[in-house]
Amino acid sequence: MKREPMRAFYIGRFQPYHFGHQGVLEEIARGCDEIIIGVGSAQLSHTFSDPFTAGERILMITRSLKDLDALVYVIPIEDIRRNAVWVSHVMAMTPLFDVAYTSNPYVIRLFKEARFDVKSPPLYQREVYSGSEIRKRMLHNEPWQHLVPEPVVQVIEQIDGVHRLKQVAAGDKTSDLL
Amino acid sequence: MKREPMRAFYIGRFQPYHFGHQGVLEEIARGCDEIIIGVGSAQLSHTFSDPFTAGERILMITRSLKDLDALVYVIPIEDIRRNAVWVSHVMAMTPLFDVAYTSNPYVIRLFKEARFDVKSPPLYQREVYSGSEIRKRMLHNEPWQHLVPEPVVQVIEQIDGVHRLKQVAAGDKTSDLL
Amino acid sequence: MKREPMRAFYIGRFQPYHFGHQGVLEEIARGCDEIIIGVGSAQLSHTFSDPFTAGERILMITRSLKDLDALVYVIPIEDIRRNAVWVSHVMAMTPLFDVAYTSNPYVIRLFKEARFDVKSPPLYQREVYSGSEIRKRMLHNEPWQHLVPEPVVQVIEQIDGVHRLKQVAAGDKTSDLL
Amino acid sequence: MKREPMRAFYIGRFQPYHFGHQGVLEEIARGCDEIIIGVGSAQLSHTFSDPFTAGERILMITRSLKDLDALVYVIPIEDIRRNAVWVSHVMAMTPLFDVAYTSNPYVIRLFKEARFDVKSPPLYQREVYSGSEIRKRMLHNEPWQHLVPEPVVQVIEQIDGVHRLKQVAAGDKTSDLL
Amino acid sequence: MKREPMRAFYIGRFQPYHFGHQGVLEEIARGCDEIIIGVGSAQLSHTFSDPFTAGERILMITRSLKDLDALVYVIPIEDIRRNAVWVSHVMAMTPLFDVAYTSNPYVIRLFKEARFDVKSPPLYQREVYSGSEIRKRMLHNEPWQHLVPEPVVQVIEQIDGVHRLKQVAAGDKTSDLL
Amino acid sequence: MKREPMRAFYIGRFQPYHFGHQGVLEEIARGCDEIIIGVGSAQLSHTFSDPFTAGERILMITRSLKDLDALVYVIPIEDIRRNAVWVSHVMAMTPLFDVAYTSNPYVIRLFKEARFDVKSPPLYQREVYSGSEIRKRMLHNEPWQHLVPEPVVQVIEQIDGVHRLKQVAAGDKTSDLL
Repeated sequence: MKREPMRAFYIGRFQPYHFGHQGVLEEIARGCDEIIIGVGSAQLSHTFSDPFTAGERILMITRSLKDLDALVYVIPIEDIRRNAVWVSHVMAMTPLFDVAYTSNPYVIRLFKEARFDVKSPPLYQREVYSGSEIRKRMLHNEPWQHLVPEPVVQVIEQIDGVHRLKQVAAGDKTSDLL
Repeated sequence: MKREPMRAFYIGRFQPYHFGHQGVLEEIARGCDEIIIGVGSAQLSHTFSDPFTAGERILMITRSLKDLDALVYVIPIEDIRRNAVWVSHVMAMTPLFDVAYTSNPYVIRLFKEARFDVKSPPLYQREVYSGSEIRKRMLHNEPWQHLVPEPVVQVIEQIDGVHRLKQVAAGDKTSDLL
Repeated sequence: MKREPMRAFYIGRFQPYHFGHQGVLEEIARGCDEIIIGVGSAQLSHTFSDPFTAGERILMITRSLKDLDALVYVIPIEDIRRNAVWVSHVMAMTPLFDVAYTSNPYVIRLFKEARFDVKSPPLYQREVYSGSEIRKRMLHNEPWQHLVPEPVVQVIEQIDGVHRLKQVAAGDKTSDLL
Repeated sequence: MKREPMRAFYIGRFQPYHFGHQGVLEEIARGCDEIIIGVGSAQLSHTFSDPFTAGERILMITRSLKDLDALVYVIPIEDIRRNAVWVSHVMAMTPLFDVAYTSNPYVIRLFKEARFDVKSPPLYQREVYSGSEIRKRMLHNEPWQHLVPEPVVQVIEQIDGVHRLKQVAAGDKTSDLL
Repeated sequence: MKREPMRAFYIGRFQPYHFGHQGVLEEIARGCDEIIIGVGSAQLSHTFSDPFTAGERILMITRSLKDLDALVYVIPIEDIRRNAVWVSHVMAMTPLFDVAYTSNPYVIRLFKEARFDVKSPPLYQREVYSGSEIRKRMLHNEPWQHLVPEPVVQVIEQIDGVHRLKQVAAGDKTSDLL
Repeated sequence: MKREPMRAFYIGRFQPYHFGHQGVLEEIARGCDEIIIGVGSAQLSHTFSDPFTAGERILMITRSLKDLDALVYVIPIEDIRRNAVWVSHVMAMTPLFDVAYTSNPYVIRLFKEARFDVKSPPLYQREVYSGSEIRKRMLHNEPWQHLVPEPVVQVIEQIDGVHRLKQVAAGDKTSDLL
């Protein structure tokens, strides 16, 4: 009889997906058969902190991981604004998993109170790879392409993403117009 | 056969409506038959940034524009907290329009991604007319009445608006009480 | 230079996933490179009409399609209760697609008003394969396993799905208790 | 000194706007200076019961009433799904009014519990003019144009409204597809 | 050292609270120190199925149970429209409890999937005591007062509850007016 | 004939409940028969500003007030994000009350616009007792237990509350991980 696959859960906002995420996922893939990647704050887009839609982020991730050994599920998770039910919400949107990977103490706490097995992967060169750093570089016309897998560069170019990020950032600053 | 009227869309929060808005709308009116004025963040009121209800803002606008040549629709638009569907939301709440007028780069971006014709009206003396400036003047007992059309002064007096703005501002600062 | 892949969109509630869906998807796969499968009403579960969670449905679909030639994205789509923005909502949650496949006249209408290319695949033996028929069979202890791919039987057994369906159906009938 | 205008409130779903509504509004106009017309269930559209968007309904009403003596505000009111706060919700979206006109006992009750002056206008030939009757006629290709003002016919033609109504009705009947 | 009190949870809609509920609660009280009573669908009111507000229901229950031995918490629980997170939602709104009492197979299922200890109290003369039966009697001017504790009669009289129920029921039938 | 009890309403977030609240409530209890305590922002928990669930706060309050002379209703009030309907929302969730007690100018304003009798109790040693001060002390391992009633200490220990507060605070600071 076939055993159930060992399944891991990993969550991020992926604004955008970068080599820090990729490094952690390659590490996780060594210890399990299947990985569920939750795309957090899925309903957000078109702001400076969250420029890309869930669909765009799913595309970035799927293409960057196409050679990974583990089977990958990429699943958008909309915010539910009630922390006490957030873990149940995640569980309803995903296949059952055995272990949750996260370095965020807040997410660790929520999973632990729900009695989940939580592991904190070592952050992959966090001083170099960070979504907010990459977004700042885009805003200031500094190089960012070397911080993300090649398919991410392609997706962002295709959707005119850097221009979008700059425009919505400008709107944020003068929001009293609206 | 009668041609369809040329229809323009203009959006703001109008907290409160002021001569800056009025100047832009008078300019827009010269180039179209009908103007749809979207009253943004319609569900908000009773905060320092958004002191007035949608109904109060509709009254300010309608009375201030009663002599405009164009036919005016004043329509509250509630926030939908999902930027990617915001343009569809606006379109569902309004008659079809030919062009959107806005100076906010963020709103420009959303309309352009939805393939709308967007025009940026020159801001009408923005250094003088600004909602946040007017609210600050109300808070600090400085003159603000000369910055808004006369009917706006009347509406704000009738609803005891300056006192409301001061009280909700005070509550904001000590929100830990609630 | 590599051309963009041809991408199709197909949506259903998949309560549960059955050979009717499978037949249509195998047909669609012949005409495109990638298929996005939207799991509709994703937030629903534990009712007679919608017994399975989005995560359980994603598992059924992914396992049943693991040998399909096309690359498959399986994406939960939560209801947004505003038909006029539903297409925008779908587009925000998915990678861009070239054509939408659906036989539901209502979904056809929404996509057509949004100027999408819509195709209606011939229903695959609809008199035999239908979600509501399968759920009725589960309720009345009639055979249903031959109507769904083998992995769907496994998922439903693993989650004790038939028993769940019977219990929530019983609760529906006496809902005045709650 | 100018007195405040006498203002009336009237609410309906206007799916579509018809001579029954028009007759009642002409009667109300005789007794007040301004009328606020609330377009109820504003967020709904594209179903058999609620085929038209708020924007389309606003257009029908505004054009049909352009010769009315009273000043008219046409304001979309989204459902709030909490009856106990519905009157407050209406009041926040509208200028202050002196009297509410409605024949719906349920709406009468809500306004009376909020201590509003409510009047029930005699229904204008209700056996002839009714939204559900008009929608059924559209569905069955029976004449309906004589039951609505001319501008309503124009709006519905322009948006291909009868075809939309038929398609979404067909989708409702086979909703298990989605 | 003091042991933690034994705490039970019981949920209903209580439209209205009646002797069937009272009988079950008196039975539960014999086996525990504290009872949490969840007032379900708390956000609903002013419909025929759910005529009374959460506050009115809390008053009915608190007054009817003032002589119960167990400490009673009466807590409104708003619907969350996502069955898969409903148990977490209840747990966030209530003190921790040891056992859930319910006769609804659907609620039993949700609690069991969340690994709760669930007990089904014998229904107290269900053929006699039932919320929907009591509401029908109110609608048709038949005696209902003997089916509920005396304080419930008082609360319903004070809020003119029977008249409310009749009016909202009438509105439901002619809802196309709105 | 028995007169209706004099009922007061008092609202707070109680993150956590402390002697400042207790002092005010003991004062209010002297002037009325029953007190309704609204637990505000009930849906929030697991953040630094709002660490405790509604259920945990209800437990803190009920146990701390068990010797109070007045009958106490402790009722969670979820945020409704529409200030203009907030008072109606509170009224739907609570038994009718005669007077609202609050020191927050913002809440005073909302109740006054709804024509409620509002009283501002003298804050009980506000420089000493404050929720945000207590949470800061927990974060920095400074003594806080003397600022809250003994049952609050017990509840917080039981739920491992200080550790929770520290972890969610740490997550807030690095939220870009999610």
